[in-house]
Amino acid sequence: MPTEASSVPAASSEETPLAQSFAATRALSEALVEPLSDADATIQSMEDASPAKWHLAHTTWFWETFLLRDHVPGYERYDADWPFLFNSYYEAEGARIARFSRGLLSRPTLGEVLDWRAAVNEAMEPLLSDPACKDLIRLGIAHEQQHIELLLTDIKHALWHNPLGPAMWDAAPGPSAPAGEQGWHEHPGGIALVGHDGSAPDEAFAFDNEGPRHRVLLEPFALADRLVTNGEWAEFIADGGYDTASLWLSDGWAWVGETGARAPLYWREGEAFTHAGWQKRDPHAPVTHINYFEADAFASWAGMRLPTEFEWEAIARGQDGSASATAHDACAGNQLDDAAAPAPRGGKELFGDCWQFTRSAYLPYPRFRPAAGAVGEYNGKFMSGQFVLKGASCATVRGHSRASYRNFFYPHQQWQFTGLRLARDL
Amino acid sequence: MPTEASSVPAASSEETPLAQSFAATRALSEALVEPLSDADATIQSMEDASPAKWHLAHTTWFWETFLLRDHVPGYERYDADWPFLFNSYYEAEGARIARFSRGLLSRPTLGEVLDWRAAVNEAMEPLLSDPACKDLIRLGIAHEQQHIELLLTDIKHALWHNPLGPAMWDAAPGPSAPAGEQGWHEHPGGIALVGHDGSAPDEAFAFDNEGPRHRVLLEPFALADRLVTNGEWAEFIADGGYDTASLWLSDGWAWVGETGARAPLYWREGEAFTHAGWQKRDPHAPVTHINYFEADAFASWAGMRLPTEFEWEAIARGQDGSASATAHDACAGNQLDDAAAPAPRGGKELFGDCWQFTRSAYLPYPRFRPAAGAVGEYNGKFMSGQFVLKGASCATVRGHSRASYRNFFYPHQQWQFTGLRLARDL
Amino acid sequence: MPTEASSVPAASSEETPLAQSFAATRALSEALVEPLSDADATIQSMEDASPAKWHLAHTTWFWETFLLRDHVPGYERYDADWPFLFNSYYEAEGARIARFSRGLLSRPTLGEVLDWRAAVNEAMEPLLSDPACKDLIRLGIAHEQQHIELLLTDIKHALWHNPLGPAMWDAAPGPSAPAGEQGWHEHPGGIALVGHDGSAPDEAFAFDNEGPRHRVLLEPFALADRLVTNGEWAEFIADGGYDTASLWLSDGWAWVGETGARAPLYWREGEAFTHAGWQKRDPHAPVTHINYFEADAFASWAGMRLPTEFEWEAIARGQDGSASATAHDACAGNQLDDAAAPAPRGGKELFGDCWQFTRSAYLPYPRFRPAAGAVGEYNGKFMSGQFVLKGASCATVRGHSRASYRNFFYPHQQWQFTGLRLARDL
Amino acid sequence: MPTEASSVPAASSEETPLAQSFAATRALSEALVEPLSDADATIQSMEDASPAKWHLAHTTWFWETFLLRDHVPGYERYDADWPFLFNSYYEAEGARIARFSRGLLSRPTLGEVLDWRAAVNEAMEPLLSDPACKDLIRLGIAHEQQHIELLLTDIKHALWHNPLGPAMWDAAPGPSAPAGEQGWHEHPGGIALVGHDGSAPDEAFAFDNEGPRHRVLLEPFALADRLVTNGEWAEFIADGGYDTASLWLSDGWAWVGETGARAPLYWREGEAFTHAGWQKRDPHAPVTHINYFEADAFASWAGMRLPTEFEWEAIARGQDGSASATAHDACAGNQLDDAAAPAPRGGKELFGDCWQFTRSAYLPYPRFRPAAGAVGEYNGKFMSGQFVLKGASCATVRGHSRASYRNFFYPHQQWQFTGLRLARDL
Repeated sequence: MPTEASSVPAASSEETPLAQSFAATRALSEALVEPLSDADATIQSMEDASPAKWHLAHTTWFWETFLLRDHVPGYERYDADWPFLFNSYYEAEGARIARFSRGLLSRPTLGEVLDWRAAVNEAMEPLLSDPACKDLIRLGIAHEQQHIELLLTDIKHALWHNPLGPAMWDAAPGPSAPAGEQGWHEHPGGIALVGHDGSAPDEAFAFDNEGPRHRVLLEPFALADRLVTNGEWAEFIADGGYDTASLWLSDGWAWVGETGARAPLYWREGEAFTHAGWQKRDPHAPVTHINYFEADAFASWAGMRLPTEFEWEAIARGQDGSASATAHDACAGNQLDDAAAPAPRGGKELFGDCWQFTRSAYLPYPRFRPAAGAVGEYNGKFMSGQFVLKGASCATVRGHSRASYRNFFYPHQQWQFTGLRLARDL
Repeated sequence: MPTEASSVPAASSEETPLAQSFAATRALSEALVEPLSDADATIQSMEDASPAKWHLAHTTWFWETFLLRDHVPGYERYDADWPFLFNSYYEAEGARIARFSRGLLSRPTLGEVLDWRAAVNEAMEPLLSDPACKDLIRLGIAHEQQHIELLLTDIKHALWHNPLGPAMWDAAPGPSAPAGEQGWHEHPGGIALVGHDGSAPDEAFAFDNEGPRHRVLLEPFALADRLVTNGEWAEFIADGGYDTASLWLSDGWAWVGETGARAPLYWREGEAFTHAGWQKRDPHAPVTHINYFEADAFASWAGMRLPTEFEWEAIARGQDGSASATAHDACAGNQLDDAAAPAPRGGKELFGDCWQFTRSAYLPYPRFRPAAGAVGEYNGKFMSGQFVLKGASCATVRGHSRASYRNFFYPHQQWQFTGLRLARDL
Repeated sequence: MPTEASSVPAASSEETPLAQSFAATRALSEALVEPLSDADATIQSMEDASPAKWHLAHTTWFWETFLLRDHVPGYERYDADWPFLFNSYYEAEGARIARFSRGLLSRPTLGEVLDWRAAVNEAMEPLLSDPACKDLIRLGIAHEQQHIELLLTDIKHALWHNPLGPAMWDAAPGPSAPAGEQGWHEHPGGIALVGHDGSAPDEAFAFDNEGPRHRVLLEPFALADRLVTNGEWAEFIADGGYDTASLWLSDGWAWVGETGARAPLYWREGEAFTHAGWQKRDPHAPVTHINYFEADAFASWAGMRLPTEFEWEAIARGQDGSASATAHDACAGNQLDDAAAPAPRGGKELFGDCWQFTRSAYLPYPRFRPAAGAVGEYNGKFMSGQFVLKGASCATVRGHSRASYRNFFYPHQQWQFTGLRLARDL
Repeated sequence: MPTEASSVPAASSEETPLAQSFAATRALSEALVEPLSDADATIQSMEDASPAKWHLAHTTWFWETFLLRDHVPGYERYDADWPFLFNSYYEAEGARIARFSRGLLSRPTLGEVLDWRAAVNEAMEPLLSDPACKDLIRLGIAHEQQHIELLLTDIKHALWHNPLGPAMWDAAPGPSAPAGEQGWHEHPGGIALVGHDGSAPDEAFAFDNEGPRHRVLLEPFALADRLVTNGEWAEFIADGGYDTASLWLSDGWAWVGETGARAPLYWREGEAFTHAGWQKRDPHAPVTHINYFEADAFASWAGMRLPTEFEWEAIARGQDGSASATAHDACAGNQLDDAAAPAPRGGKELFGDCWQFTRSAYLPYPRFRPAAGAVGEYNGKFMSGQFVLKGASCATVRGHSRASYRNFFYPHQQWQFTGLRLARDL
C-alpha cells in the first residue's frame, strides 16, 4: 500500500494535532484507492459491502453535512443531488438510494469524487481550529477511519468475485514464524472498570457506545495470549468440525447447512484470497474471516469458550493507547503499517492482527444515551442481534484502536478480518 | 378451558408429588385440545409454530425416548416410524422432517396420538417412583409445560388465519378495571445474586440455562409496578409511533418497512383476536403480542428503557415460588387459571399476565455447561440473536414460573403473549 | 375407490340425462373423499394444489353462485362468509383468501362442507330441468369433473409428503403386460379441422377454449401408437438423460439445476408413490408425473419430438366420444374405472392413461372470445406461459375426455398424471 | 451517437461485402461505448441485462472461439482465463461465471477489452475471405448486431437506476408529428408462406429459428397501419387500465399486483428516461418498454387483439430487405440512424420504431432442426415460455431487420424497445 509522504499533505509547523489528523486521514483514504480504477471503485459485491468510491464520497458527505452545512454560514453544497446518493443510513438526513443500488453509481466518477474531496478539504480548513467544532471533527475523523477499514474489506470481497483474482498490492514478504505454544493471561476476577470515560478532560476520542465507564463484576478467568492460527483451524476442519452438529449453535448449524460452508471465507485449496490476490496460506498466521458461529464452534471443539467483552477489556487495559500519555500521538499515527496488503501477522498482540469475537451481545452500557441529532444515529440504533468484537485488525487505522472500542457484526458475517482468541474459567 | 377433574387422573393418596405433577401435566395437554378437531390440530400457520397434534406427539416422543427407551429394559417403541416425525431439533437423535412439513402430517390422527399418549403414560408408571429418573422426569414435565404454552400460542396463530375467526372457548367475563397510575419498584443497586442454584438440595426444578447462580453488579434503577396497557399502546400509535424512525432500532425500522406493521399482532379496528375469537379490545389490559423492536420503540417514546434480565430478577426474587417453602406445591398446581380463554388481566403481578422483554441478550451465564447427551441440546444451542423475557404469561402453566426462568425469542417474533414493563435509571 | 351405488343417488326414470349427470358427478366427488379424514381433507402441500375439502367446497360455491344466486329468486346463501373462502380466482366475484392459506382452513369441517353440498344439491333440483340453465349446468358439471381430477392429484401430492406413505385405496392387481414395440399412426398432412363446434345443435359440452372449430394446415407426420413407459424412462436416466445439457431447453436445464431432479416426481428406488402408497414400479406402465422440460428432453434423446396439439387431435378425431352418436352417454358414464387407486395401465389408448404433452403453447384459437361475465374468467385468462396437453388421464372422469379438450400446465409442473407420446416428421 | 468515419475502418476497394460488414459491425460496437467510462461499462442492473463491457467481450469471445480457435491452426487465445468470464450460455463451451456476477468484473478493463477486440479483428482478417467460414462469419455478424441492441437497452436500464439520470447523447430534436388516425392493412386470409428459406442460394443471412419456410393458413384479418402511441397509452391509464382485472391475463394481473406497475417502464410524471436522460414524453411517439401482459391488456381494452407472428409477417413480406435484390446492401448499412439517442419516431413503418408483440409463443417451426455443435445452442433451447416479437426497434442495427426475424422475450420483460400494433378479425 503506498505510503509516500507525497500523498499526505505536509503538516505545517503551525498545524494543530487535530488538523494533522484530519489531513492524514483524508490522505490515507485516497492513498488506498490509488491501485483502483474507476470501475474497481464502483462495483459492489453484496448488500453488506459498499463500493470504494462510495466510501470516499460518503465520508465527504459527512464532513459537508455535519460540519460545513451546519457550521459555515452560507455554505453551498458542492452538488445538491449527491446527498441522496451518499447518505448511508441517517434517517434524520432524509431519503437515500437503496443500499444495494450503490453498485450502480458509475457517476459521479472516481475523479469527480476526488475533486469533491479536495474542495471539501479546503472548505474545512477554517473549522479545523474552531474549538466549537472540535468534538464533531474528532467524530468525523473516527468515522472516516472506520470507513477506511470497510473500504479495505469491501474491495477485497468485490475483487474475490473476479475469477482473475486481481491484486491491489504486493504481498508482504515471507510466512510468519511459528506461533508457539499458547499461554494464558490470568485474571483473578472481581470488580473491574470498563468503558470509556467521556468526561475526563484529556481523554482521547471515543464513540458514544464505549461509555459510560462503569463497574462490572468478573469471575476468575484466563485469556489466551495469542490468536488461533490457520494451522489450528485446519485441524478443526480435519477433525470434522464443519460436520459435527453438537459443536454448533442452532443458528450456526443452519448456516452451515444453507451455505455449505466447509472453511473460512476466502480459503481454497492451500490458498487464501488477499489484497495481493491468491496467496499460499500461512499456517502460523492468525485465522481470519470467520464468523461468530464458526468462532463459537471452534471454541467448543477446543473445550474452551469465547471471552466476554469485559474480560477482554480487563486484560487489554493498560496495553492500549487510550490509557497512556501518548494517546494523541497514537491517534496521529494514522497510516496502516506497511506498504503491502493488510494481513494479520504475529497474533501475539491484542491489537492489530484481527478483530476478536466475544460472547457479549452488542447492547447499551448502563446509562448510555445516544447523542442528540442525526449523529446520534451513529451507534445506538444497531443494538440488536449483533456481537461485540474487540481489538483491531490489520486493516484498522493505527491510533483508532483502544481497549474500550466496541466493534459489532451479525453472527453470520465473515468479510471482516475477524478471528479468535480463546478463554476459559479459572 | 375445560378443567373437569374427570380429565385429570385422580391422584391416589400414595402418589408422589412428582407422579401427581406428571399426571396433571399430561392431562392438561389433552384437556387443551378438547375443543379442537383433528384438522384443527393438524394445521401449521408458519415455520415458527407447530400443529397442536405435533405438540402432543413430540412431548410423548420425549418421554418415550429419554425415559422409556433409555430406562426400561426391552421397551419397544409404540411405532418405529414416528420418531422421524416428532423429534423437534435434537441432532443427536437423528434425522427428522423439515420443520415446515409438520403441517402436512394428517396421519397419525389426533385419536392415534391420544392412544399413544395413554400407552406411554401407562408405561411410565414404574419410572415415576424411580429415584434414578427423578431429574429427567422433572425435565420432561417442564418440557411438556413449555409445549403447553406453545400449543396455546400456536393454535391461536393458526385460527387467526381463518377468516371465520373460530373460537376455542368463551371469553373471560367483562373488561379489566383501570390500571391506575404507574408506580415504581426502586432498587439501590449493588451486588445481587441471580440465577438458579441447581445444587441446593431442596430447590425446585430449573432448566440448565437458569444457572449457575452468580453475582451481578447493579446500578440503582426502578422497575415499573405494572405493565404497559393496550390503552397506552393506542396513544403510542396515535402519536405516530410506527412512523417515527428515530424511536426504532435499525433492524426494527427495517421490520416496520417490510411488514407494514402499524399495531401489535392480532389487532384490528377496535378488536383483538383471542382464543375466544375476535373480541373488543380492553384498554386496561396489558398490551401483548408485541416484539422486541416494538417494546424498545415504545420505551424510547416513553423516555424510559427496558430492564435488564438481572434488574427484573432482583425485583422479582422473593415474590416467586422457587424461593418459598411452597415451591413444590406451586409446581403441582399445574392448571391454567380459569375455564376461559387465556388472557392477560391485571398487569400488576410480575408473573402471569405476559412475558416481559428485557434488554438482555440470551447468553450463557458464567460457568454454564450444557447437560451431556441429547438433552443437553435443550437450551444452550439457542444462545445467539435472541432476547431474554422474564415473568410468565396467561398461557404459562402455573408453577412453571419463577424468578430465574429465562424465556427467549428473536426480536421480530410476536406470536407469544409478550408485553412490556418499563424501567429507568435512578 | 368405492363405487357403491349407495353413494350415488339413484336416477329416477323421469330424470333427464343432465340431472343424472349432475347427481353422479356430485356423488363421485364425495365418494372419493370417503377414505379421507377431516385432517387429510384440510392439508395443502403447495400453492399449486388445494385441499380436498376446498375442492368439495369450491365446486359447491360455483353452483351456489352462478346457478342458485343468479337463477333462484330470493335464494339465500348457506353461509355468507364462505364465498370469501371458496372463490378460486374469479376477480369479478370479489376478494378471496390468499391461495396458500387454503391449507389453514380447518373450519368449516369436512362434515359441514358435506352438509352444505347436500343442501345445495337439494336447492339445485328445480333448476336441473330448466332449459335456461342447461348451458351453465353443463359447465358446472364439467367444472366439478375437472376438480375431481385435481382433488385426486392434489391429495396424492399431500400424502406423499408424509413419511408414513399413507394409502387411500388398495393398489390395482398385478403389473401391466409388456407394452410391445412402438408403432406409428401416420398422417399425410393437409388441411384438418380442429376444435369444438359450439354451434352444432347436438354437440356435447365443451369449454370455450376448445373453439371455435377452425382449419389448420398440417405437414405429414407420425404419432406413436403408445405412450413412453417407465422402463424406457429408466433407460433415459441410465443413459445420463438428466446430466446432458444438450438435451434440455434452457429453462429446463435451469430447473434441473435448481431442483436436483434425477427422475420423475414420486419415484424412489424401484418404487413410485401412488394413491395406494409406495408401490413397486411397473416398467410396462406409461411414465407419468413428468413435466414439459422432461418430456421435451426425452424426445430429444430419442431423436423424436413432441406432437403439436393439432397433430394429436387429427389422429384422435373419430376415436372420441364427442364425434360419436353416443356422446351424451359417454358423458353420463362419470365414474372412474375401478375400485382401486387411479393408475395408468395399457398405454395404447389415446385417452385415459395420462395427459400427453404437446409442443403447442396454450393460446387462443382464431376468433376465440371468452364468455361474458364471471364464468368468462374460466379459460382465456390463463393463456400465457403454459403448454397444451391432450388425452385424459386415469384420474379424469370418464366422459370428460374428448379430442378437442385442451388441458394446460406450466412447463415445470409435474404433479398431474402427465406423460409422453412421441411424434416425428414424415 | 458518434458516427465519424474515423472510428470505422475504411473499406478498401478490394474488400468483400462480408469483410465490410464485419468491419462496420465491429466498429459500431465500439462507437456506441465511446460516451461510456470504464465504470459505466462495468455495471449490471439486473440479471437479464449485461454490462456494456461484457457485450464487447462476449462478442469477441464468439469470434475467437468459433472462428479463430476452430479455423486458424495454432491460434492461441489472447487470454486463457477470459472464456470463463465471457461465455454467455453455451453449455458445450464449458463452465462460466454466474450470470449476475457479470457486474463485478471491473477487470479486464474497458481498455483491455478494446485491445483484445483489435487483436481479434486483425487475426480474423485471413478468414474473412475464406469461403469455408462464410456462414459462420455471417452468424457472428448477426450475433454481434444482436448484442449491439442489447448493449443499448442494457446500458439504458443501468443508467436509469442512477438518480442523477446520466445521458449518453443529446436527444433527437423536437417531438413527433401527430400520428394521425389509425388505418388498417387488410388481408383476405388463405395459405401464406412464412419463414426464411435457408436453402435459396442468394438469400441473405437468417437465424436457424426463422426457418424452414413453410405454409400457414390464415383467417381474414387486419393489422393496424401504425403503432399505439404514448398518448393512447395515457388514455388507457386514465381509464383505469392498470386497475381493471378483467383486462389482464391471470399472470399479468399477478405481475401488476407484485410490482405495483402503473405505467410503462421508464415513465415518470410527464417524462420518460432515454439515452439522453430524462426527457419530456412525446405523446405522438410510439409507446415502448411495455411487456406482453401490458400489450395484451391494452388490446383487450381497445376491443382488439394482438396479431399472430404469421399475420404480421404476411403483411410485412415484400416490405423488407430480405425479399429484395438489395438485401446485402441493407445488411452492409450497419449504422444506427442518427447521431442521437435511439428513440422511436414515426410509428408508421413496420420496421425500425419498436419490436411489436405477437400473440404467438416462441416455438419451433415444422421440421426445425438446430445447427450441430455449440452454435446450435443459439436459438432452439429458448423455446418455452416466451413470445415472438416482430419488426425491429430504433436500437436495431439497420440491415438486421427482416420479415422473418423472430425476436422473443418473456411476458414480464419490459426493458427492450417493445411496443404494440393492434390487429382484428375480419
